[in-house]
Formats: sequence, C-alpha cells, structure tokens
Amino acid sequence: MPPRYTDLVASLPANVPFIGPETMERARGADFLARLGANESVFGPSPKALEALRTAEAGIWKYGDSTSHDLRHALAAHHDITPETIVVGEGIDGLLGYLVRLLIEPGETVVTSAGGYPTFNYHVSGYGGVLDKVPFDGDREDLPALIARATQTRAKLVYLANPDNPMGTYWTGAEIAAALEHLGPDTLMVLDEAYGEFAPADAALPLPVTDERVIRMRTFSKAYGMAGARVGYAIGAVELIQSFEKVRNHFGLNRAAQAGALAALADQPYLSEVRAKVETSRAEIARIASDNGLTSLPSATNFVAVDCGGDGDLARAMVAALGRRGVFVRMPFVPPQDRCIRISCGTPEDMAVLAEVFGAALAEARAGAPD
Amino acid sequence: MPPRYTDLVASLPANVPFIGPETMERARGADFLARLGANESVFGPSPKALEALRTAEAGIWKYGDSTSHDLRHALAAHHDITPETIVVGEGIDGLLGYLVRLLIEPGETVVTSAGGYPTFNYHVSGYGGVLDKVPFDGDREDLPALIARATQTRAKLVYLANPDNPMGTYWTGAEIAAALEHLGPDTLMVLDEAYGEFAPADAALPLPVTDERVIRMRTFSKAYGMAGARVGYAIGAVELIQSFEKVRNHFGLNRAAQAGALAALADQPYLSEVRAKVETSRAEIARIASDNGLTSLPSATNFVAVDCGGDGDLARAMVAALGRRGVFVRMPFVPPQDRCIRISCGTPEDMAVLAEVFGAALAEARAGAPD
Repeated sequence: MPPRYTDLVASLPANVPFIGPETMERARGADFLARLGANESVFGPSPKALEALRTAEAGIWKYGDSTSHDLRHALAAHHDITPETIVVGEGIDGLLGYLVRLLIEPGETVVTSAGGYPTFNYHVSGYGGVLDKVPFDGDREDLPALIARATQTRAKLVYLANPDNPMGTYWTGAEIAAALEHLGPDTLMVLDEAYGEFAPADAALPLPVTDERVIRMRTFSKAYGMAGARVGYAIGAVELIQSFEKVRNHFGLNRAAQAGALAALADQPYLSEVRAKVETSRAEIARIASDNGLTSLPSATNFVAVDCGGDGDLARAMVAALGRRGVFVRMPFVPPQDRCIRISCGTPEDMAVLAEVFGAALAEARAGAPD
Repeated sequence: MPPRYTDLVASLPANVPFIGPETMERARGADFLARLGANESVFGPSPKALEALRTAEAGIWKYGDSTSHDLRHALAAHHDITPETIVVGEGIDGLLGYLVRLLIEPGETVVTSAGGYPTFNYHVSGYGGVLDKVPFDGDREDLPALIARATQTRAKLVYLANPDNPMGTYWTGAEIAAALEHLGPDTLMVLDEAYGEFAPADAALPLPVTDERVIRMRTFSKAYGMAGARVGYAIGAVELIQSFEKVRNHFGLNRAAQAGALAALADQPYLSEVRAKVETSRAEIARIASDNGLTSLPSATNFVAVDCGGDGDLARAMVAALGRRGVFVRMPFVPPQDRCIRISCGTPEDMAVLAEVFGAALAEARAGAPD
C-alpha cells in the first residue's frame, strides 16, 4: 500500500517546470550543436573561477561551510551591504522554494505575471498557494498592475523579474521604487534579478537592501557562467534573511561551488568581458532575425526574444524546427508573447550554426512541418 | 514591517542542526589539525572521481541534467534494480526534507530514536510533525520498540539508521525484515543507510526495493568521500519515488557532482581500499582509547564511539579539550550514549595527532578544565 501523502501533495500534479536539454538530446539521439535555450552563459566562468572550482575539488570529501561565510562576506563587500542581509542557497530556484515555504499557507494568494517564471509558480503551487496572474503590458511585466493586484488581493508575495525572462525587457529601479509606494502592507515583492549583471545601470533598485518591502534574488548561474554549480543568493532585511535558517538545507551547498563563486565574484574584469560578448551576440541574433525578415526585441539580458511574425503555433514549430537542426531554444508560454522564440546569447560558433539553419527552419515552420 | 510568516514557521526556532567545523575554526582562530567530527571520509574520493569532478567543471556553465539520468542508470545497474526506483537528490539531508514534506501534515507523528539524526528531526519539526522518540537499547537503536511505537501511534514515518549514527551499531537485514512484519499499515520506514558501504554484508535488507513499507537512503558523502558534492539517493517503490517529482528542486544537483558520483561508483576497487583503511583506523582509534584506559564500541561505520567512562559532562569536556588541541570530534546527544565521544576514522597522520593529544585532553577533561 502506498503511503498516505499530505492532502496538498496528493492534489499536486507531477509538474516538472522544465524539460532539460539532456532529456531532449537523449530523445533526439544526438547532442545539440548550439545550446541556446536555457540562458546559460556559453562563455563559461572566469578562468580563475574554473581554477578555483578544480582546486577546491581536492577538499570535496569535506562538507561545505554551512554558513557560506567567506562567500557571504565577499558578496557583502561587493554590494557594500552587511553579511547579515545575505543568504546563499542552491540557486535562485532553491531560494524561491524556501521563501514560498516561509510565507505561503495553503490558499493564500501570490501575484505574478502570466507567462512568468514557471519554477516560481511550481513552488507556489507546491506549498498550496494560489497564483493570480497579471498579463504582460507591451512585452513588459505590467508593474503597476502587479502592484495593484497584489495590494487589492492582499497577496503575501508579488513576483517581478527585472530584467524580465522570457522577453528581456526591464523597468528602471526608480520606476520600481515608485511603484512600491503603492504596495499594500501585506505583500513582499520578490525581485528576481537573475539577469541583473546584464542590465543597464538604471535597472538597479535605489532602495536600501534592508527595505522590508522587497527581497532580491541574484545568481552565479547567468553572467558568472556557473549554472551547474547551483549558487544563488537573496538580499533583504536581516529578520527576513535570518528566517531562512528555519527551513533551509544548511549543508546543501556544494563545497567547490562556494570556492568557485568566490573567485568568480573577485574577477569583475572577466564579467565585463562576458557583458561585451553578450552584447555582440545580442546584435548578432538580431541581425540573423533581421536577415530572415523578422524583428527582435531590445534585451537587457543574455538572450533575445525574436518575433516570428505569427502566433504561438508558428513559434512552437520554429522551436521544433531549430531543434531538429541541432539548435536548442525555448519560447514564451502565453499569448501574445508566444509569437516569439527566445534565443540565448552564444559564441561566434553558436551564432554561425544559428545563422546557417535559421532560414530553413523558418521555412519549415511556416510550411507547417510535423512537430 | 516584517512579512507574515506561516503559523508553522512563526512557531519554529532558528534551529540549526549542526555547527560546522569551519564555524568552529573561525571561533578558535585556527584550523583543526585533525577533522574527525563529521564522519567525512578523509581518504577522499577515488582519483578517478576527482578527475571526473575536475573535468566536468569545464561544463559548469550548463545546468546539470535535471533527471540525473546517467547516474540513476548506473546506480540501477550497480544495485541490480530499475532506474524508476531511484531518485537522486542534494544529499540524504535534501531527500529527507522532501520525504517529510511529501508525507507529514502538521501534528502528525514521526517515530525516531532519542539521540537520532538531528537533521531528520529538523525536517520533521520544520513541516510541523511531532517527534516521538524511543530510547536506545544497549547502544543500539531499539528496532522492536521503534516498530511497536510507530504501529501503536499510527506514525506516518519511522526512522532507522542502519548502521546507526552516532554509536556505529547495526541490525542485520534479516532482523529488520522480520521486524517490518509487525509494522502497521500507516507507517513507512525511512532506512538511512548512509554508512551502508562500511557495514557487514548481513546488514543488507533482504527485501525487494519495491517493498512499499520502506524507503532506503544512500549517499556519496561517506564511503565515496564526496560529502561536499551533495549527492544522495533514495530507493523505494516506483510510485513513492515518482512522488518526489512533485516537490523536489529539479535542477538542484551540481553538474560536476553528478559526473563525480558516476566515476566514484564505477571505481569499486577504490571503495574496497577505503574500507580497508577505515578498518585500520577503527582499530587504531580503539587502541588509542585502550592505551588511555577507555573502552570503545565495535563499529560498522567509519567512526568509533569511545566510552569516556563518565557522564555527558565528562564527554563534553573531552570534546572541548580535544578541540582545544586541534582535534574536531563530536558526541552523542542523550544519556547514556552521551558518555561517549564519536571519532571519525582518519589517515595515519590524523591518528598520530589523536594519539598525541588524547591523554592530555582526557586528563584535562577529568580535571574539569574550563569548557
């Protein structure tokens, strides 16, 4: 007889937020030629971070420091804040799970954007929260509407990715700060800044990190090129940050990953190089789209949303057609954003592969080839 | 204004199951000379695993395979079971958290041993479960009493570590199988086999892994020498294992760690070497204890419980006195087991340090030196 799950768990679907590219590769029987679907940084981590990762493996027989002391202190110095306002966790995904667990009782409301980050939604549903989804406004998350809806429903959490995934758009920090003035007292804003290192300077939120209305999420998975290491961090008011101690997996962080993140953070010149490469690749993706008669959206991230000029079915066909040609990309989940496909920035070699297959894939997608 | 936490979270203490050795080292202002307190494997991973870890770091810009496909399939082959009966997670700690979340509603009973694994207790309390603790019987977990108590209280979970931590004792698999015949239909046994690779062959549970009365936990943190990598796995009935998909952090596993675990599993000759070294070190710890007039318990693990010949205060003083001399050890939490200290196996160099300081530390502990 199977065990009796909690009522909540029994009600949950087997809901995997994302199918990983390795699973797709096994299904197609071949590796992708260009892995441009998960907004990873194909440019990899700093050589110094890679060296630190490899060196630290010699000590992998030891559990990692459960307090991430050195990394937290380095992050504090980097952001000019105190270590007590930072908690390090197993990627933003892990931290979002902990945050939802801290706050959401079954039946409570959480506001996010329709088409917003599925893994956040997975956690909210997983703890019994009720998602209230606000449509995008002109390919940006609708900040005023999100704030208004959260305030009206007295939602415990409102999620904003800035810059946004999957569209690459952003709000200025000043706009967010102004919007927060209208946020009701029941709501905490989760500001997911996974792509923050790619954003223009004016995207930074000009508020003290101890502002109790917001918790910020950052990661080493994107600009720092360490998605596989699983290191993210949250910044917020001391009392909120300390509350993570009640629920987190204290020894959950990989030891080498902590050392790698420390070295990556220290190599800011490399980060500047990555930013420049990303800028080049964004332009290249836009050019490839344009060469094929398509438009693309301006991006404050390491990916570009390319408008396929049709509906979601056309974009889905394009994702599949590119996939058959060895190019892994993804796409937005809801209309009208799902007219686009989302292409992560890549190396010149990745861009060459993309340029080579793009036209034929688009023709096949338009012809309605079998998915 | 701080956010409104869930009622459960608001009721929780800031309960860190373990203070890590790095925190202690910072407090004492010096690194430990011998790190023998966390039952890590000082012998480290297989050189082949270390090479795999380092090689895989080159791909750390990619998220890890969310299904741990290759590792699960290799584990399935190793244990001669099907991949569908295995879920890989962020160490046994992470998997225990998921399991408790799957099953325990606030107020429901979980049976474990007094002095049992604190991180399991942390998860149970963290999800609102009520711990019902059964005393050890003669330095072994009291298997019949655990089964009887769980059945009587209709507990959802009963926890058994086999071999046991912190005493190093064990039950034979045949004894556990026989005891399970008396387990009521409401209870799932969590069989924590973290030290299983060190145990005598007769510790293996002679039941199909799909037996719905039990879920087994295994890890690469102990015998495989990769505690810092965070790779554990659970084995059980397909339906139970699949339920983890509803709650787990799908992309939570470090990519290099997966590759390292795969290589570690493939190098069984190295595991045999580690077993031999552990056996040597166990004998050496017993000899050091004996040389100082103390007895030690037979151990089926990579650590030895040494009876300090007094009460918990004496053992605590001994842990502190060893710590002051640069030797990190831990001790059981409850009487009468807390008459012992728990010393992890180490290299010959570690044993030399231990031998050198043991007598003076014991004299200081007996003299009631300041803690």
